[in-house]
Amino acid sequence: MSLLNDLQWRYATKRMNGNKVPQSKVDNILEAVRLAPTSLGLQPFKVIVVEDAALREKIFNEACQQPQIKEGSHLLIFAASTKIPASQVDEYMQLIADTRQIPLESLDGFKANFGTIIADNTDAVNYAWAARQAYIAFGVGIVAAAEERVDATPMEGFSVEALDKVLGLAEQNLSAVTILTLGYRDPENDYLVNAKKVRQSSEKLFIKKNDIG
Amino acid sequence: MSLLNDLQWRYATKRMNGNKVPQSKVDNILEAVRLAPTSLGLQPFKVIVVEDAALREKIFNEACQQPQIKEGSHLLIFAASTKIPASQVDEYMQLIADTRQIPLESLDGFKANFGTIIADNTDAVNYAWAARQAYIAFGVGIVAAAEERVDATPMEGFSVEALDKVLGLAEQNLSAVTILTLGYRDPENDYLVNAKKVRQSSEKLFIKKNDIG
Repeated sequence: MSLLNDLQWRYATKRMNGNKVPQSKVDNILEAVRLAPTSLGLQPFKVIVVEDAALREKIFNEACQQPQIKEGSHLLIFAASTKIPASQVDEYMQLIADTRQIPLESLDGFKANFGTIIADNTDAVNYAWAARQAYIAFGVGIVAAAEERVDATPMEGFSVEALDKVLGLAEQNLSAVTILTLGYRDPENDYLVNAKKVRQSSEKLFIKKNDIG
Repeated sequence: MSLLNDLQWRYATKRMNGNKVPQSKVDNILEAVRLAPTSLGLQPFKVIVVEDAALREKIFNEACQQPQIKEGSHLLIFAASTKIPASQVDEYMQLIADTRQIPLESLDGFKANFGTIIADNTDAVNYAWAARQAYIAFGVGIVAAAEERVDATPMEGFSVEALDKVLGLAEQNLSAVTILTLGYRDPENDYLVNAKKVRQSSEKLFIKKNDIG
């Protein structure tokens, strides 16, 4: 299974060598992120793609002092919707109708159900849900980078407030939830490069329920 | 890129034909879930694997009336930690030390940092964080099923309270966040089987920041 090899190959790269990831590889990783499934298909997030060195320097200084921010070549910043207005649901219905060439009205039942759930929830509940959906795409992006043999660092250790400010996310009803830094490992300086992967055993992580007990 | 093919192949299967997924495929999917990265490596969740038909029937009746629960052959129920006691952090430190054959004391700095963050957060904050980590593994599991050409339905439409009760999760400081049902599509009865995949365009989903603006 090539996915298992890819997962064994990857690690949370701590130091990168500054080499640039080719655009074709970045595009494949982004395409995988775009195709990732989300609940109801809404994709309630955006991915901010940062390549510019000056902007990465600013992010390093103001929001996230991890060296990969500067040593990698691209940041994929996953930002979840902090509010989901009715217009976002409407646009999505139009997208379904256009993609599948079906009448918009045929989606009225679906829209009524799911628009109501979203409208009835608080913004905080919808944001927590949106963040989880972003993490599905984030997981798929991690796998995609590994398949492309691009090193990646999944990162949560940043100031959300500062990063949102640098990128002007609040004005777009978005808030950063996680970063995937893309680049290439620097084996001489990365203490983790040869470290054995640490994972719970199957016996601990999985609970097998084969009878009703 | 085989991942992109796998993502194009898969869809949220609405009806399954009752055929059983071979154990070797289930094992590969679980191994991918186990190898998925999580923040700090803690893996603050469990995956409950349900194969027994009577238990799936009970889950269908009490928590989730979607037909795939009965028509698939395995449910992977991702349940996030609702509390993260200090003992969980201690066990993880021991796991790192054992896996990498390093002295436990060499992890004191790491443990102090991250144990403090977890201890200082409320259970609600830690649970929201744990749920996001579970969704990374969930995303990886979705990809793994597709690579194995096993159909899967990612599901959130269930009663968390009822499912937690059926599985006795609260007593284990766990709460169900999402389900991946594994099985095989029933093309004759599944209206979605030939429907075109609906996704936002790259132009909408990605925000390219190539200058500091």
